[in-house]
Amino acid sequence: MPNPTAAMLVIGDEILSGRTRDSNMHHLSGELTRVGIDLREVRVVSDTRDDIIAAVQALAARFTHVFTSGGIGPTHDDITADCIAAAFGVPIDVRADARGLLEAHYARTGGELNAARLRMARIPDGATLIDNPVSTAPGFSLRNVHVMAGVPSVFQAMVAGLLPRLTGGAPLLSQSWRIERGEGDVAGPLSELATAFPDLSIGSYPFQQNGLYGTNIVVRGSDAARVDAAMVQLAALFPA
Amino acid sequence: MPNPTAAMLVIGDEILSGRTRDSNMHHLSGELTRVGIDLREVRVVSDTRDDIIAAVQALAARFTHVFTSGGIGPTHDDITADCIAAAFGVPIDVRADARGLLEAHYARTGGELNAARLRMARIPDGATLIDNPVSTAPGFSLRNVHVMAGVPSVFQAMVAGLLPRLTGGAPLLSQSWRIERGEGDVAGPLSELATAFPDLSIGSYPFQQNGLYGTNIVVRGSDAARVDAAMVQLAALFPA
Repeated sequence: MPNPTAAMLVIGDEILSGRTRDSNMHHLSGELTRVGIDLREVRVVSDTRDDIIAAVQALAARFTHVFTSGGIGPTHDDITADCIAAAFGVPIDVRADARGLLEAHYARTGGELNAARLRMARIPDGATLIDNPVSTAPGFSLRNVHVMAGVPSVFQAMVAGLLPRLTGGAPLLSQSWRIERGEGDVAGPLSELATAFPDLSIGSYPFQQNGLYGTNIVVRGSDAARVDAAMVQLAALFPA
Repeated sequence: MPNPTAAMLVIGDEILSGRTRDSNMHHLSGELTRVGIDLREVRVVSDTRDDIIAAVQALAARFTHVFTSGGIGPTHDDITADCIAAAFGVPIDVRADARGLLEAHYARTGGELNAARLRMARIPDGATLIDNPVSTAPGFSLRNVHVMAGVPSVFQAMVAGLLPRLTGGAPLLSQSWRIERGEGDVAGPLSELATAFPDLSIGSYPFQQNGLYGTNIVVRGSDAARVDAAMVQLAALFPA
């Protein structure tokens, strides 16, 4: 059986203007090669409705999978989700499950789920959510199009959760733990934890919020009991 | 008058497989922004004849300019020039001017202009050559499509020579000087030369050939007398 094929669609004016250097293409191309999906084409388009819709329709018709990055944040130029819905002619609105994730996240972190942030819960009808263990706001798969964030750490975390679902590998489970200390303070104990759980992937994603340095730790594995055990130790090392 | 528009077409399996990380897109996007050409789309396709032809035709019809990178070397999978000719329905063959550049280059460096290398002199009818001050084998412009090498140092040198022609800026003249010493040995005197000629751009491009480390120096400017003066000093500093 020939390998499944794929295209990637990178969405964002900031890439085309040269202000931001894309790194998601190189990451995804390596990951797809590793799991035996042939990446055949990449397109980069601007935050323009007609361009996004045309590219999604052209690529979704030709390849087994289309992976997108960018344009799913809270600002007015984040129009990817609406364009994907339009490309397939399905309705889109704030969906209860995505809204619930955001409500829980902002209740925990003390932020406000305002109208702008609520845009990140707009999900096309019939889509499956893609887990975002780094910053919560989910991606989604609609038919053969997989819509992910442009921020590299979030994109990478979403790809890690999504690919096993597409290739028949054991689904990866993930849990995250928020620590209000910088990565440098966390690195030592975290390294010991990783050594104690060689069967798990333990990633660290720094953030800065209101002048505070913090680190999100994401624990991934296919055995739920092992992931739980690591989370218990993590919580003991770094109490909330 | 609105800005001219552009697309870029990156050609190469090695980018899509993740083996090589493309850097030409980021370079070109910055340069186009600087000269006021709007980059609207980038596509990356594999070394596949039909894919290259289809992409060239689609992009050339929609944008003022199309810039390509990759697929113009001496090996069997370097098929870009033939695909561009086919996309526009024009003949292609080894052209005397391009062949002359390669003959002079290999006479100077002692290499052999064999059949494989002669492929790099295949130029579509009606095309204008794009100067390659780094490694000689030229790019070309056919109508609104500008065909350049994938090796980043060569791509960047070609872009530097091409853009003034497209934007009505003063055409850049360039001359190069080959030094059979590594960049580290050359850097000091070269820096003094650059200080003495602030109106010129003096670039250094390392190479390795037959186990020998060397450096190509490219001097660029819009005033021929100044470029000549710098070349005289360069030859005195690093005799052939």
